[in-house]
This record gives sequence, C-alpha cells and structure tokens, in this order.
Amino acid sequence: MGLKAETRDRLKTVSTATLATALYKRGLRSQFIQDVKPLNPALPVMVGEAFTLRYMPAREDLNPITVFQNPEHPQRKAVEICPAGAVLVMDSRKDARAASAGSILISRLMMRGVAGVVTDGGFRDAAEIARLAIPAFHSRPSAPTNLTLHQAIDINVPIGCGDAPVFPGDVVVGDGDGVMVIPAGIADEIADEAVEMTAFEDFVTEQVLAGRSIRGLYPATDPQTKVDFEAWRKQTGR
Amino acid sequence: MGLKAETRDRLKTVSTATLATALYKRGLRSQFIQDVKPLNPALPVMVGEAFTLRYMPAREDLNPITVFQNPEHPQRKAVEICPAGAVLVMDSRKDARAASAGSILISRLMMRGVAGVVTDGGFRDAAEIARLAIPAFHSRPSAPTNLTLHQAIDINVPIGCGDAPVFPGDVVVGDGDGVMVIPAGIADEIADEAVEMTAFEDFVTEQVLAGRSIRGLYPATDPQTKVDFEAWRKQTGR
Amino acid sequence: MGLKAETRDRLKTVSTATLATALYKRGLRSQFIQDVKPLNPALPVMVGEAFTLRYMPAREDLNPITVFQNPEHPQRKAVEICPAGAVLVMDSRKDARAASAGSILISRLMMRGVAGVVTDGGFRDAAEIARLAIPAFHSRPSAPTNLTLHQAIDINVPIGCGDAPVFPGDVVVGDGDGVMVIPAGIADEIADEAVEMTAFEDFVTEQVLAGRSIRGLYPATDPQTKVDFEAWRKQTGR
Amino acid sequence: MGLKAETRDRLKTVSTATLATALYKRGLRSQFIQDVKPLNPALPVMVGEAFTLRYMPAREDLNPITVFQNPEHPQRKAVEICPAGAVLVMDSRKDARAASAGSILISRLMMRGVAGVVTDGGFRDAAEIARLAIPAFHSRPSAPTNLTLHQAIDINVPIGCGDAPVFPGDVVVGDGDGVMVIPAGIADEIADEAVEMTAFEDFVTEQVLAGRSIRGLYPATDPQTKVDFEAWRKQTGR
Amino acid sequence: MGLKAETRDRLKTVSTATLATALYKRGLRSQFIQDVKPLNPALPVMVGEAFTLRYMPAREDLNPITVFQNPEHPQRKAVEICPAGAVLVMDSRKDARAASAGSILISRLMMRGVAGVVTDGGFRDAAEIARLAIPAFHSRPSAPTNLTLHQAIDINVPIGCGDAPVFPGDVVVGDGDGVMVIPAGIADEIADEAVEMTAFEDFVTEQVLAGRSIRGLYPATDPQTKVDFEAWRKQTGR
Amino acid sequence: MGLKAETRDRLKTVSTATLATALYKRGLRSQFIQDVKPLNPALPVMVGEAFTLRYMPAREDLNPITVFQNPEHPQRKAVEICPAGAVLVMDSRKDARAASAGSILISRLMMRGVAGVVTDGGFRDAAEIARLAIPAFHSRPSAPTNLTLHQAIDINVPIGCGDAPVFPGDVVVGDGDGVMVIPAGIADEIADEAVEMTAFEDFVTEQVLAGRSIRGLYPATDPQTKVDFEAWRKQTGR
Repeated sequence: MGLKAETRDRLKTVSTATLATALYKRGLRSQFIQDVKPLNPALPVMVGEAFTLRYMPAREDLNPITVFQNPEHPQRKAVEICPAGAVLVMDSRKDARAASAGSILISRLMMRGVAGVVTDGGFRDAAEIARLAIPAFHSRPSAPTNLTLHQAIDINVPIGCGDAPVFPGDVVVGDGDGVMVIPAGIADEIADEAVEMTAFEDFVTEQVLAGRSIRGLYPATDPQTKVDFEAWRKQTGR
Repeated sequence: MGLKAETRDRLKTVSTATLATALYKRGLRSQFIQDVKPLNPALPVMVGEAFTLRYMPAREDLNPITVFQNPEHPQRKAVEICPAGAVLVMDSRKDARAASAGSILISRLMMRGVAGVVTDGGFRDAAEIARLAIPAFHSRPSAPTNLTLHQAIDINVPIGCGDAPVFPGDVVVGDGDGVMVIPAGIADEIADEAVEMTAFEDFVTEQVLAGRSIRGLYPATDPQTKVDFEAWRKQTGR
Repeated sequence: MGLKAETRDRLKTVSTATLATALYKRGLRSQFIQDVKPLNPALPVMVGEAFTLRYMPAREDLNPITVFQNPEHPQRKAVEICPAGAVLVMDSRKDARAASAGSILISRLMMRGVAGVVTDGGFRDAAEIARLAIPAFHSRPSAPTNLTLHQAIDINVPIGCGDAPVFPGDVVVGDGDGVMVIPAGIADEIADEAVEMTAFEDFVTEQVLAGRSIRGLYPATDPQTKVDFEAWRKQTGR
Repeated sequence: MGLKAETRDRLKTVSTATLATALYKRGLRSQFIQDVKPLNPALPVMVGEAFTLRYMPAREDLNPITVFQNPEHPQRKAVEICPAGAVLVMDSRKDARAASAGSILISRLMMRGVAGVVTDGGFRDAAEIARLAIPAFHSRPSAPTNLTLHQAIDINVPIGCGDAPVFPGDVVVGDGDGVMVIPAGIADEIADEAVEMTAFEDFVTEQVLAGRSIRGLYPATDPQTKVDFEAWRKQTGR
Repeated sequence: MGLKAETRDRLKTVSTATLATALYKRGLRSQFIQDVKPLNPALPVMVGEAFTLRYMPAREDLNPITVFQNPEHPQRKAVEICPAGAVLVMDSRKDARAASAGSILISRLMMRGVAGVVTDGGFRDAAEIARLAIPAFHSRPSAPTNLTLHQAIDINVPIGCGDAPVFPGDVVVGDGDGVMVIPAGIADEIADEAVEMTAFEDFVTEQVLAGRSIRGLYPATDPQTKVDFEAWRKQTGR
Repeated sequence: MGLKAETRDRLKTVSTATLATALYKRGLRSQFIQDVKPLNPALPVMVGEAFTLRYMPAREDLNPITVFQNPEHPQRKAVEICPAGAVLVMDSRKDARAASAGSILISRLMMRGVAGVVTDGGFRDAAEIARLAIPAFHSRPSAPTNLTLHQAIDINVPIGCGDAPVFPGDVVVGDGDGVMVIPAGIADEIADEAVEMTAFEDFVTEQVLAGRSIRGLYPATDPQTKVDFEAWRKQTGR
C-alpha cells in the first residue's frame, strides 16, 4: 500500500486538467481544490499522498502567542511528523484573512523532504515561500498569524479543502491550474489513464498547431486520427 | 460537571445579545454563530450543551443513498446518541446548497429530549420543522439530501459553526437574534452576569419607554440611575 | 407529450425534498434552484412545466423606460404568452439588485392561469405579490425596475436559474424549501416514486413521533419496518 | 427647505418600487439601499429626511465596553440628537457580523419621534424591535455588540448604505421592498410624479385583476387606456 | 459593415481605461467585463468583434464525456466557426469552478486567426495558454472539464460576461486592466475619441513625470495647458 | 511628533507578517488590510503615515466627467496635498468594479515624494502603475473611471480599508503579503520589537535551512536556542 514510486513518477508527467477529466469519467466531479494557486508556478508538478491538518475557528482565550511553546501544538507537530514525500493539506475553511503557516514552517517541511503544502486559506511570508524549492498552494498571501483566526485541532483526519474532500492517503497533484485530489484506491489506474491521455493530447496539440481542425481529431471520431496517432507514437516513442 | 440545571434555567431568561456583551467584556468576540436563524421564532430560548457533528465535502462514490443502511452512519448515529438536554450543532461548512438534515431526524431529536439543533447550512422540510416543538436554527431551507454535498464524518469533536468555535460541552443559547456559544468553563458566571444585566436592561427599557433619555441612564453614569434601579429591583422583586 | 394531469396531481402531494432524493438516486444533483423562497409560504405546492425568460445585463442606451411601449418587449410578451398551467422561470443571473418583475405582471400571470413564477433575482411589490393566489419564488424583494440591470432577451430557451439547468418543458415544483426542476422525460416516473416515498416518510414520521428509533426504520433495514408499513398502508388506504 | 409636510404625506401613499421608476427616468439607478428588509413589515411606509451615522471598523484598544460612558460617543449622541421626523441611516459597511444598535436605542429613537432607522448591517434584539412602532430596516439580526466590529465615528456626513449614496437631508422611504433614497432637491417633484404613477398603477391593477391584458394597458399605448383611466379617476376621485 | 480595419488599428493603440471614460461620457457605465485578467499580460492589446458562446448549468445526464463526439457540440463548433479577427466571448455565468475551455481549443482558435478569447469563468491548461500568441482573459485557472458545470447551449446570441452586456458584433478590447465592450454602432467614434484622449494623456503623463502639478493640467482647465499640448502635438507629430 | 526617521528606517527592514504578530501580542487582530496586493512586488517595503481619502457610492447627477474641472475635487486635491513621505490610503468600500485612481494621479504622487498608495478597490492603468517607482496596493485592476461608482467625499478622516481601521497618522507598512496598519502611538515600540523578532526569525530560518527541527527552536523553548542565537548575533553583528 501507499503511493507507488512509478505512479508518482507518472503523475509528475501529467496535468491536473487531464486528471480532472479522468476522474470525471468515473463520476468524480468534486476533486478539484477550488481557488488555490501555486506560489511559485515554475516548480515541477507536485505529487504526494495527503497528510492533513484541520483548523477550526480560533477562540481568543485558547490562542495566546504562548501556545506554540507546547511541542504538541498540532500545527507545529504536523510540520515535524508529516512524512517525507507526502503533501501537507490544510483545511483552513477557505478563510485567508489570517495565515495558515509561514516561511519558517514551510522551510522545515522542505528540509524534511515533504513533497508540497496546500491550504485553502493563505500563507504569510509569501514572497519568501515562493523562492523555496517546495511547491506551495494557497488562495492569497495573508500576514496575520494563524492564531488570529485559526486553531489547529486535528492531524490526519478527513477534511475539506477548497470544497474538495481530502482523505489521508489520497494522492494530491498540483500544477499551474491548481490541485487535484485522487482517491487513494484508484491512483494507479488514474495515473495510467492520464499518461495515455497526455500522449494523445500532446499529439493533438502538435496537429492543431500544424493547422489541423479539431473536427474528427479531438475527440478522435475520424478513424484517420487513430492511424495518425499510432504513427506518431511510434515515431516519438511514446 | 456538565451544565447545571440552575444555569440552564437562568440562561433561558436572557438574550443572546446580552450574552454577547458579557462575553465581549472577557475578550471573546467570535462566539456568535453567524447567519443562522430560528425556523420557529415563537419557541422559547434554546439552551443546552453542544454535541457536535462534523460534515466534510461529499465524494460521489462514498455517498450512494444506501449509506444510510449502515446504522453507524455518523449522521444517523448522532441523532440517536445526542444526549437529552444537549444541542446538536452541525458544522456544514456554511454551505446550504444541500440539507444538513430533515424533519424526520429532527422529529427524532425532539422525541429524544434533545434541546435544539443548529447547522450553518440548511434544513430540508423546513416548513414541517418549523411546526415542531424543538428549536432549530439554520441559514436557509435546502431541499437536496445531505449526501449531495455533505458527508458526516465525526461525532462530538471540536468544530466551526458559522465561523464560531464550538467545543463539545460548550453551552449553546439561541433566540431570535441567532445562537451564542459560551465556553463551558465560564457558563455559570456568564449566566449570573447576564441575569443581572437583563434586570438592568429591562429597567432601562421601561425608563426609555416612559420617555427618559439614555444619557446617564445607559450606561448608568448618572448616580441617580443606580438609585432608581435599586428602587425598581425592590419594587419588581428582581 | 406535455405534463400529464395525473402527474401534476401527484406532484402536488409531494415535497421538493422527496423529489430531490428521487433525482439524486438517478445521479441528478443540480436540479435545486438555489436560494429562492416563496413569497407566500401558505399557498399549495406549485407544479407546472417550465416556460422560460432569459435576462442579460442591461445596456443603458437600450433600456429607456419607453421600451415597454413595444408590445414585443420580451418581458411583457412572455407574460402574455406563457401557457396556462406552466411556470414562468426567469434567468436573472442570480442578481437581485434590480427586480425581475412586479405585482402587475404577476397579477396578469395569475389571471391567465399560469401555475407560478420563479426568478433567481428579486420581485418588486413583494408584499402585494405575497397576497396573490399564485405561487411566486425569488431571492429577496427588490424595488428597482428591471431595466436598471436586466434586459429581457430570449423567450423559452434553455436557461440557468439559481445554478440549476432549466429546459422548456421541464417540470417545476415549488414548496417551502424552494424549487426543484424535474427533467421532462422522467417526470412521470419521478412523480410515481415520490408518491411512494412520501407514503413511507409519512409512516416513518408517525412512528418517530410515537417514540420509535430511526434505527431499522429509516431506512427500513429492519424487516419488521416493512411489515408495519404494509399494515399502515392498508389501514390508511395509501 | 427641509421636507415639506405635504411631500411627506404623499410619499406615505406610494411604494419604493414606484419611486425607483421615477428616479430611473431621471438617470438615478443607485438609490436603492440593497439587501435590507423591515423588521416589522406591518408598519406603514417610513418617510423622513436622512440623518446619518458612519461606522468604521473597530480597533480593539479603542472600543472597551466603557466607551459608552462618554455621553459624546457618536452612536449614543446620534440617538439623542437625530431630529424628530428624520430617519437615522447607518453606514455599517454592509457588515452584519456585529450589531449596529439594539432595542434600547431604537426604543429611544421611537420615543423621540424619529421616523425610522436603517442600517446596512444588523440589529440585535431583533424580535423586540419588531414589536416597536418605529420602522426599522436591516440586513439580518446580529447579537454581538457593535463594539465588536463597528466604531461610530461621524454624525450626519454623506455615507454609503447598502451601496446607495445617502446625503444628510435626502428623503428616505421604506416599505416591504426595502428603502429608497430620494435626493433632497427633487423630493417634491418625485412625490408628485409617484402619486400620479400610483393612481395609474392602481387602475391598471384593477383592470388586470378584472381580466384585461397588459397589452396597450401597461404602458398605456392604447388610446382607450387613457380614456378609461380618466373615467376611473373621476369615478374614484383620484 | 463590421469592424473597419482602421478602427481596429486605432483601438490597438489605446487603453481600456481610456475607452471606459469615453463610454462613461455617453452614459455607458456597464461595459467593463468584471474580474477577468489576461493570461499573458505581455501580449499586445486585443481587439475584435464579439462572437459569443453561451453556457448554461450542466445537467449530469446530458453531459457524458462522449458529447464531444458530436461535431455539432456548440463548444467545439464555436471554436471552428468563430471568424478570424473576432473575439470569442463566453458567458460562463461568472463560475470558474469548472473550465470554459483548455489549451487545445484555444490553440485552434489562434491557428484560425481568431483575435482573442474571453470567459468570465476559468481556463484549464492556463500555463500553456499563457505561452500562446493569442490574448486570453479569464477569472482564474480551473482544471475540471467544462462538462462538470457548464453546458454550451447557444452560439452568437447576446450574453452577459462578467456582468457586462455583450452583443454579437460589439467591439471587444482587452489589455492589462481587463476587457471593455464597445457597442458596435459607436466603435468608430469611440476609437477616434480615445486616440485623441490618449494623445492628451501621454502629454499629461510626460508633464507630470517632469514635475508639473495636475492642477490646471488634468483636466486642462488652465488655458496654458492647451497651448502646451498643441505645441507637444506638433513636436511629436501626434 | 509624527513618524520618526529611525522608526521608518527600522520598519523598512521588517515584514508585515512580523508586524502582525507584534500587534497580535497587544490584542490588535484587525490591522491587516484584507485582500490587497502590490502592483509591483519587486519594490522595497512601503512605509509611511496614513493620509486618507474616503469614497462614497457615486450618484449619477453629481458625477459628470466635468467634476474634475473643480480644483477642489477631493480626489484631485488629495493627490496634491498628501504629504511627502505619507501613504495615501483610500476607502473604496472594497469595491473594485470601478477604479480608485489611475497612472497619472499615481505618477503625480510619486513625483511629490509620497511613500505609497493603497486602495481596497482597484487601480486602472495597472500595467503602467506597476512600472512606477512608488509602491501601490490594490485588490485588482479596474478600467472604469472612479466616477462610475465612487465619489471622493472626505480627506484625512478615519476610514476603513479592507476591513482594517485606518486613522490619519497611523503607520502603514506594505510588502508582498499586503499592508499592515500600526496605530500611531505604538509605532516606535512595534518597530523596535519587530526588528528584534526579525533578527531571531532570520537566525531560525538559517538553522532550519541547515536541517534543524523547529522543536525547541521556534519558539525558543530549548535554552540552547537562546545560547545559539546570542552567538549568532555576535557573529553577524545584529
């Protein structure tokens, strides 16, 4: 169990748009984390299993700045125990009025080998995070400390993030369009299908840029399209 | 421990507005469940300890209509185990596009002696619920079954409801203005203070309706106000 | 073709919540017109085939008050040609900042035998409309004339209303929870199923109000429930 | 200067919808206070000159509960100096997460002869306010004290309320649809025009309820309509 | 008829801000497509006549992935028939939760000589589209296929886009601020006026950057400003 | 009095995130201007005292394009009198549907030595403003002239901006995360504290990037951390 290395590698070569279509074909329409974007769009595709952190609204008396002195504070603990290769996904209730985390914690995640971090709220120190070599996705920058509005309450439970359901172990993929969540049980087959779809889409793109109409080509309702695609695969070794 | 009968009784005589002010004086500014209203405004004040249900976004493959055949389904289980005298508070992520529950479940809560039910989403069968003798608060009516968008996932964990933090055991009070959440540890003192405040506010209201200015009266910066209030208390036995 | 009289009659006896569940079982999750409510909740259930009016944003030079002198103005024309028994459904782009219609037009619809009127915007003269004997649903009252923001542009084309798809001829049902849209082709079977479901729900409600647990009862996983239900049907003649 | 008694009387007989159309004809499209509703829809039409109160976001250190001990606190002062016959209009930045005022202050306004009160936020003690004989309009009930989010900062300056511009002295009219703001300088002519329009609309309504088509009737493009209307005016003395 | 080549050329030299002011002077206040931005801000100004595509909310049974096999599917057909030099404007009901189109279709538009593409929803494959030499404007990236929420239903009808009215043939101009819609009938005069305004604004900018006050300069209430401007025009040949 | 040069210099070396935490420790949770971003993120940190401009909703008859011919028009006047070194902060009621200002006015502010400009609405000519050497923050670009929706009404009064309270003379600091507002009376102490915090955070970042755990380090609950930090300060001269 767990995310196979080859599945991870395959997913790194496909787009969230292609994955969305593959999931759509299986009746899954809600797996896109709405309204988050990469802080550094130049990084490679983010892939990893979801490790989650749940925030609830902060109550003032429970959230003095001193709470972080407790090494078991869920936000800090999550940063130290999120597995290497996983993606830390935070349920911030789509509220970016205070930060979900800042550059120090995300630097620590990067150093620990975590594959990425996602919040449906906002990060502080956004410019610094954008310079780190770890993919990070949020809604918009937010300077206030998380204590202002968010209390970290649960680690690695099922959550919502940007209106998408996220279960621990789901496979999370992020690129310039945002973040898709693949249910753990179908990650392998979705990866396979998406790699196939990507080959076809690359072929189609080449054809379109060469002047061909999408009629009969995309989708491949004209039998000639399939012939041409097979030839292209041979030629390109895909 | 737990909510004392006398505290419950006192809270039934005060308003959420008065409670909000008492909590504000202690630095608690986020205890109002935003944007919910009573389905039947004519019922008495709702008071009870919070028993919570957490929803996450629904994933289509996990939410066929058959899930309710499982007696352990968290929504159905919560309805059967929520203690009499408690208030069932649902975290529906402020999403009323599908229902949090309907009239049959709320009828069952009423029959079991539950003190009330709150969601930051919506209820279906709203007209029928409005005719039941159990206080219910929601954002707006919503016909679609909860499975459409909401998957019940956790019972009696800390949640957010209408942007307010709700911990199991917190004391929940609801009236025409909406719902306030009193941290469990200060419920007794808040109840006492609110009863005192209510006496003063009733006195002030009487004075104002008799034509007196609020200057010096509300707040009682004129010493005569305190004299008059004491006389009023004696006279009215409050 | 068209809505059968017996289907109409059956739909008048069921709730939008029950219809939503029946549609959900068929994979239709988007048929609830979000965020509209009845102006007069005391009227019977609204049932009729959709006849649509599409508004686009108003351009100032095209919408002087004089446009209504044109008898072919789509808003006025729609009011005069919407068939008796149909429901006039307006796509106001969920914008209630200006009215979709007012009491005079809705009075005319009522006199012409139209079964109801729905907008995902707002009506003006809301208090007067609430006194008419025609079901009307909107988001909230809105005094400004439709010309302020809405230009009627198309009659009886497929539209969106409150994020629901509405095709001319779809069967529209409205009650206290709001409005459901049943695809024309399945109206009969949905009506039949909903009548059956309603009988069962009425039985369940009776049982619950008599103190029975929902476990095994709702859904009927306990075989005794089915036995009891059959007995109840005989007894009640349903 | 000031609102003439006869203009006030005329405005009490017309609707905000009619006024909106009269203003629309003069190019004024933004005079409707968006998204407010009467707490007691059964009261007569509210009419009065605007007297304004401006709130800004509250800063915690400036808003302890003790600020109300200052008799010059703008919220309390506004309540004591708003002229009889005027309407107190509050700019709460469309934020109903905390109250703009409560029943005691609004009782005082009523006793002082103020004609009404409007906020684009919310009132606390909404159920009590709804029982007072002063028209009050808000977005929704809100229990938290105004200090939580609102600091009263300016009295009788030009403000925005529900996205409408409100200048001191503008004539404010409220009914079941909400609240319209008439620029002071055209209040008389708008009142006259609206009374005329109302007569015609009442005639039209009568005709429509008698079965007449709106074609040629509304607007009166058929010359016969004008003839009939004149006859109706004579008959009804309007 | 249609957009003149010289008008197109002129519009390529002006900004949407200048056009907005020219339209404002004619009483047109709603011609800005709200909340869209260019995917590639480095491209030249987009200019072309509007060719429209209308989406409605998707119904699940009508939108299996196989619908694209139909060459007449309106989305695919629009891409193949939108005239060279036109701008394809999509009414996606301001809903970016699913894509309006992706890189393959937009590549095809580019190859066909289409002048640009606008949606008030979102595009998928946003990073790839940003590298194409065709101006594209949207609200934000969105990975899910359009079928998830959008059904293409009408080609080249009047639509709303970002709350702006768009009629087929209107002249659409886009730059870093977003997209303006010029009614077809006044495109020539607006272009002329905007070119004149741009000359003056360029002169003003030069003056301001040289240290001159805006008083008397912008607008040119000081007669000397007009003298200086005329001299500048001669000098610069504009 | 006023902002000391050394406080200004110190504030230029710290981040809004650090300032937010320092303010949070003093109970100030609302000082972040929500949802604004820099047009040019590459500029240095913006620091200056707030000089404010308040907009109200525009009334059509008061806002013809000719109003700018009045040299006392508050928008134009504010641009000419805002002190050098100050930050012009505009209350645009969080409404970016029309512009708050454009490149000519902001060029003039730059030439006059103004330290920056902030609106909770949008600027027009955004691409040009982004090339100026003055920090500017807004919500999003917006082409329409301010007259379309905004009437400048007051100069240098207390305002709200992005839900934050802003008093004239407050110290405004802006960077990649957005804009913080420091109450004037505590600017010096906040600057001192933030410089200290920044030193520690820089040390922590270095340690984390060298592989150290945040446990005991951030916050410095491990005594060794304090020892190491002191050594680092000596070594780095901070």
